[in-house]
Amino acid sequence: MRVEIWSDIACPWCYVGKARFEKALDAFPHRDQVEVVHRSFELDPGRAKGDVQPVLAMLTKKYGMSEAQAQAGEDNLGAQAAAEGLDYRTRDRDHGNTFDMHRLLHFAKEQGRQDELIQLLYRANFAEERSLFGEGDERLVELAAEAGLDTDAARKVLADPAAYADEVRADEAEAARLGANGVPFFVLDRTYGVSGAQPAEVFAQALTQAWGERSPLKLVDQGDAQACGPDGCAVPRH
Amino acid sequence: MRVEIWSDIACPWCYVGKARFEKALDAFPHRDQVEVVHRSFELDPGRAKGDVQPVLAMLTKKYGMSEAQAQAGEDNLGAQAAAEGLDYRTRDRDHGNTFDMHRLLHFAKEQGRQDELIQLLYRANFAEERSLFGEGDERLVELAAEAGLDTDAARKVLADPAAYADEVRADEAEAARLGANGVPFFVLDRTYGVSGAQPAEVFAQALTQAWGERSPLKLVDQGDAQACGPDGCAVPRH
Repeated sequence: MRVEIWSDIACPWCYVGKARFEKALDAFPHRDQVEVVHRSFELDPGRAKGDVQPVLAMLTKKYGMSEAQAQAGEDNLGAQAAAEGLDYRTRDRDHGNTFDMHRLLHFAKEQGRQDELIQLLYRANFAEERSLFGEGDERLVELAAEAGLDTDAARKVLADPAAYADEVRADEAEAARLGANGVPFFVLDRTYGVSGAQPAEVFAQALTQAWGERSPLKLVDQGDAQACGPDGCAVPRH
Repeated sequence: MRVEIWSDIACPWCYVGKARFEKALDAFPHRDQVEVVHRSFELDPGRAKGDVQPVLAMLTKKYGMSEAQAQAGEDNLGAQAAAEGLDYRTRDRDHGNTFDMHRLLHFAKEQGRQDELIQLLYRANFAEERSLFGEGDERLVELAAEAGLDTDAARKVLADPAAYADEVRADEAEAARLGANGVPFFVLDRTYGVSGAQPAEVFAQALTQAWGERSPLKLVDQGDAQACGPDGCAVPRH
């Protein structure tokens, strides 16, 4: 079974939702037959690369919240994160463009290091004092190295704005096609969708349901297959 | 869309079928949204690692063919391969155990080099004069390097019989569950199955059919999602 998770590094519910999903996955009896793929989604695609802003200022300006409302939201997120055993910095976080992080995540996917990298990016953004957005590419290169990626290769990906850009756009187009207008968005075997940071129980139920309903394949053209099996390789009759 | 291909390096129809599938895939309009994954299947899992035998001797002994029948089968395969632009050595090929190649292919998958490696393994087995089976691990390390893998890492995988062994077994169990008793076996989005080295037109039809029938997701628990979208992050109501 395959689970695809659309998310954004700038999305606190994605950070919390990932932990809840993983709690369900760890307890799932067929865990070793579940493959997890992370897909790109930008919450703020119109923001310029260097445009870094404190989260509270972004919330009040972009969404018209009062500062007290915005801070209450952050405090609530901090409490929900803590309940999952996650550190969360409720004061003085930054917000910025995440396109390059998504490009880097696609490179990491090719190298089998995607889950390691996304976890480090979340941690850097939500739990650490240093701003993930304020130090440019070298901060991302550092995290890429920590995730087990080659430093020079990561630097090269970041320096070329076209590298993996199509892959990011394709993920985003696919999210739209699947009807996801927010993240996190979990898709199980392209059959079941789970929207949002649901409780682990909901993920457990979705995993069980999708697993149980894996349908038998419809076979296309069953005649005269040129194939090899335990009894040898078929010699075609036509 | 995802296409999974179960195959064995020792399977000539897999070599030919891959080329036919790729012909269809190259012409498929949504080609850039199709991901291909190679899965393990052993035609001769009971054969000991060092037990290398000429193909003709294997065919006559294991399947009770006459030497003329076996050679006619090889000549036919050579002609079918040639029709796909593939080299095929119809004389003096070797046969042996492929478990370690499958383990290495799982490592290559993690490194984003699976397709490169399987193509090189096929070529080495079916088209080259040197035996793929007769030279031990170092021949595989050489091909791994050619596929862009780290030489030391590949050598380490080969030296440890447990490395990626579970992944190979899981693929084989999955093939059995899906009803594949021969290879190549192509599975599109876990919905359509294509058995054998079908003509490119059959693959084209299967790709079109599976693409057109991608079904809308069933959403699990739509209430009260803790998610972030273009209008900000939801503050939970419970």
